[in-house]
Order: sequence, then structure tokens, then C-alpha cells
Amino acid sequence: MVRSGFGPSLVILILIQAKKGKKVEAYLAIDAGGTNTRVGLVKADKVIDSLCFATLPACGPQDWLKRLGLTVQNLLDKLKDQGITIKAVGLGMPGVPARDGVSFSTCTNLPSFAGQNWARALSEMFDLPTAVENDANLHALGEFTHGAGKDVDSMACLTLGTGVGGGIIMQEMLLKGPLGLAGEIGHMVVEPNGRRCACGCRGCLEAYASSVGLTGMLREGISQGRHTALKPGDSVELITQAARLGDSLARDLLKMAGIALGRAVSILVSALGLDLFVLGGGLSLAWPQMEQETKRELARRMRLVEISGIGLIQAELGEQAPLLGAGAMAAGLLNK
Amino acid sequence: MVRSGFGPSLVILILIQAKKGKKVEAYLAIDAGGTNTRVGLVKADKVIDSLCFATLPACGPQDWLKRLGLTVQNLLDKLKDQGITIKAVGLGMPGVPARDGVSFSTCTNLPSFAGQNWARALSEMFDLPTAVENDANLHALGEFTHGAGKDVDSMACLTLGTGVGGGIIMQEMLLKGPLGLAGEIGHMVVEPNGRRCACGCRGCLEAYASSVGLTGMLREGISQGRHTALKPGDSVELITQAARLGDSLARDLLKMAGIALGRAVSILVSALGLDLFVLGGGLSLAWPQMEQETKRELARRMRLVEISGIGLIQAELGEQAPLLGAGAMAAGLLNK
Repeated sequence: MVRSGFGPSLVILILIQAKKGKKVEAYLAIDAGGTNTRVGLVKADKVIDSLCFATLPACGPQDWLKRLGLTVQNLLDKLKDQGITIKAVGLGMPGVPARDGVSFSTCTNLPSFAGQNWARALSEMFDLPTAVENDANLHALGEFTHGAGKDVDSMACLTLGTGVGGGIIMQEMLLKGPLGLAGEIGHMVVEPNGRRCACGCRGCLEAYASSVGLTGMLREGISQGRHTALKPGDSVELITQAARLGDSLARDLLKMAGIALGRAVSILVSALGLDLFVLGGGLSLAWPQMEQETKRELARRMRLVEISGIGLIQAELGEQAPLLGAGAMAAGLLNK
Repeated sequence: MVRSGFGPSLVILILIQAKKGKKVEAYLAIDAGGTNTRVGLVKADKVIDSLCFATLPACGPQDWLKRLGLTVQNLLDKLKDQGITIKAVGLGMPGVPARDGVSFSTCTNLPSFAGQNWARALSEMFDLPTAVENDANLHALGEFTHGAGKDVDSMACLTLGTGVGGGIIMQEMLLKGPLGLAGEIGHMVVEPNGRRCACGCRGCLEAYASSVGLTGMLREGISQGRHTALKPGDSVELITQAARLGDSLARDLLKMAGIALGRAVSILVSALGLDLFVLGGGLSLAWPQMEQETKRELARRMRLVEISGIGLIQAELGEQAPLLGAGAMAAGLLNK
């Protein structure tokens, strides 16, 4: 019987009855990335345990679902003495959530995963209520519920990774927006006639404050004959290290990233009145090298707002953030 | 007895019992501007009637409250045969709402009105529940509940007036933000090295797409020797008329305003995934002269979004929008 659009239903009952000891209620959190998928069991503010498997986008969603089922089984086997009952499922993917709330209209790194009814597929597979969301939004939700934003009611989380993603929480609500793009600030213009971005526009935030942007600027600097100890293709980590050691090109690159970030933050302060910005992703590790320029640009752009009241801080949860966010979303499903 | 911080309590009982005919339940809506204050009675999607009085900021809040009381009494006298019962009060002011939800931290054109507990003052004066909000937010709320946005769940309303204000509604919630500034997009940077804005920064949206911005650009164009039928100090209406008649400077000025607006809209689409922008304020009457450039700039900035799905439309309610918004907010008080 075809119910989910993924072929024969793959119902796996993972409700394990506690044999001894007290029962632990947990949420199944799934973070599907272009390369790896991480599966975790989340209880309140903790990832009890997690496992990874290769996403293999080319094999398609049905194959992925099978491997997901096996991985969940392995994870539960690992934890079988703890008597865990799963209450609901949360799935994050690097895609634009569709208006239907159950699928993604586009999935940049997982094209064949777009348009599938994931909420139904996982509900049927695990016989549990399931919610789906963009992974950057879940990252933000994780930091909001259990990390750097746990004491506020509004914040933006900016993930400065390969590209720039993000999520915005206002008045305790995760913003989505009719186009499903809320918080995806990577393609916000910060320098109208600036560097060409992968999206085809000029001067997007992502063209400066991401690893793609930073390594692109490194190649340009070297090809312009700038003196540096770095080589084309060197990573964000190496650029950051070189900046720390005084390399002038590396310092200039992180300065440009910092200015772009400061401008983006000033725009979000203006448009949304936010006062807390949580920085995640690989480039956020270079924050000590960017902080001064980011704050200087923010002060330059904001004359009507007291800058000292605006917090820019590093994310606290690292890779666990999307799992904790998926867990919080799954818990929210039951409290509706 | 001093209760409200405004001196002796000014309780005016305005609950008029219906003598004959059916009772009409209405909300008292107050829109305090730097020059005039408009007072209206709002029932669902209609302003039953309204009256104006001079705000006179220099006379202070106590004096304003007295004149407000008299005006409300006059308005009710006008309508005494209709048997109106007022259920709640909504007050809008051109200020930044404070975190306490009852006052404004700053009121640009009404400095002595900042820091006062307006919710308490009006609650005591009218013996009714009272809510306060920024006037541009109420403008947005009015268009959202009864105007150009009545069929959507999310929109931004941009008021292109003397300056640029605005309000954002996402998933049926008016955004405020911890700093109380949400939607105040006038000082969002759209041209980092552009025109100087009144706030002291360069290249804010308001420096281009407001009457202050447009008339400033007119003066600059004339002083640079541009050929035009216009004179320094000519109004937005005259600039718009000249553009319609083919004046090249006037056309260029509205083109610049249009580009700035398009860039601001692209930023809001990127950051919030919004797909409806309602344009109000005096400059929105020049929309037919700006539309092409605004949409061209939007298309230039947005490569990952289908532009045809983004609506830019003129506001529908004009000056009634803030009153209808204040009425909707007051009604919302009772539904909490």
C-alpha cells in the first residue's frame, strides 16, 4: 500500500517499553545535511546520544529513509537498557520549507528531497507525530531554547558556515514568512556594487562573511599580488590563524567579513529591533578577529540606538544545536 | 489623589447607555501626531466618526489629556443617539514603545510625552482597558486587519511620509522586537556611501524614499545646475507632477527613490521571506512613477526568489489606517 509517496510504508515501531528502571521520554531529532545525516535522541536540554550516516543524495529519498530507519534502530539498540519512549519526531533539512508545512519547496544540496511529504513519511515510518523545518531555523531554535539565547524572548542566530544561513525568533516565535525564507539572510545586500555572490547578485552578506566568501577574497587578494603567507585554497582556519599571527592580507579579509557582518546586523536591528545576535558556523570561530570591525560598522550605522545594548555572542551548542532545536520543535508539536 | 503620574485623576465615564435603538459596541482609537491628534470611534472595519485637536506638545501631557477628554466628550455628544458603548481604548504615538508595554522610551516629535505611563493614564481617565503602540505599527495593523493586507497572514507596511516608518506583521503577529523598533525601517542602510540622513548616517532608506529625502535631492540637483521646471522647496506632489510631465530631474529623483525602495524590499524579502509590501504615506502617491525602478532593483537583487510572487501595492485606508489599527489593538486587549 502506497501511503506516503515514498513507496511501501516502512513503519518501524520504535516505542520501546521500559523493562526496568524509570522510563525516559525523548524526542527523535534528525538533521539531514548534504553530506551526513545525524540522528539523535533528545531529552529536554540534552542530546542523550546520536549516530551519523552518509546522506548520499544521489540514491534518493527512499533509500535515505531505509538507512534512517536502520540508524534509528541502531541508536535505540545502543540505549536499550535506558527504557526510552519516543514521543515525537523533528526533522531538519537544508531547504526552503513549503507553505504546506510538511515538505520543502527547494533543497539546494538534496534536490531529490524537495517536494516530498516528509512529515507524512516519517509519521508513518515511526508511527509518531512529526514536524519538519529548515536546518538553520532549527539551529536557531536550539540556541534559543538551550544555548546562548535561553534567557531572552527574541534573537537572531547567524550561521556563518560554507554559506550564511540563519533563523530569527521574535517574541518566542520562530519566524517563517510566507516564502519560508525568514532568517535566510545570506543573500541580503550589504554592498550594492560589491563582490559577485554565488547567487548571481552583487554584494550579498554571503559573498563576505562565509567560508566561500572568505576563501574567494583570499584568491582575489593573492592574484592581485598581495603579500601573504597564505596560498589560494587555504581554509578559514588557516586564514584565521594567519590573521592572529599578523598576516596583513588575512587581517584585511577578516576585516571585510566583519564590516559586512556589522552592516547586516545594523539592518536587522533597524528592521526588527533585535538586541541579541548569536553567531554560529565555522567562521564564527574567527569572531575575536572580526569583533572590533563588526562593532565599529554597527556603531557607524546606528545613530539612534544605544550600541552597548546590542549583544553579539558566539553560539554555545555547536553541532548539537540543530538536534536540540529539532527536539524542541518535536516537543512543541505535542503542546499545541 | 495622584494615581497616574499626571496629577489629579481625570476619570471621565464615557460608557453611554443606549436609550433607544440597538447598542453599538465600539473602541476608542487615538492617533497622536506631532501636530494633530485624531480621536475616533471604531466598530469592526469602520471608523464611525472622528474629531481632531491640536496636539500642542509644548503644553505637556497633562494639558493634552484634558483636551483629549473634551474631544472624546464632543465626539460622544455628536453620536449620542446611536447608543454607543466603548469597550476599550487604543492609543498610537510617534514613539518607540518601551519594554513595559505602557509607555514610550522616546517620542521624537513629542519629547515630553516619553516615559509617561499612558496605558494607566487613559485606563483611569476612561475607566477602560487601554493599550498603547507606535503609530506606524498601528498603521500596519489597520491595513492588515481591514485594508490591503486583509487576506494575508504576513505583510510589511511601509509609510513613505516625511520620514519612513513601518510595521511588520508575521504569522498574524505584530512584530515589536526587544528594542521596540521592529518595522522602523527608515534607517536601514541601502547605499553604504550614499546621501547623509537626518540621523547622521549615510545611505539610509529615509534619505531617498521620503519627502525629506526627495526634497533634499531636489535642492542638490538644482544646486548642481540640473535643468528643471522645479524650484528648491517644491513639494513631493509638485515633483511627482513634474515627473509625470516629463521633467528629467524629477524623473531621476523618483527613480532614485524607487531604487532605494526596491533595495529595502529585497532586504526584507531576504531576511523575513515576506511577499506583500503595502506602501502608504505621501510619497506612495508617486508609486506609478516609481514602480518600474523599484521592481527592476528588486529583480536585480533577488536571484533565488520568484519576483512575480512578491506584491507591492498601495495602502487602501489612508488616514483611517492608524485609527482602525488602534481599534483592532483595543479589541485584541479583550480577546487576550
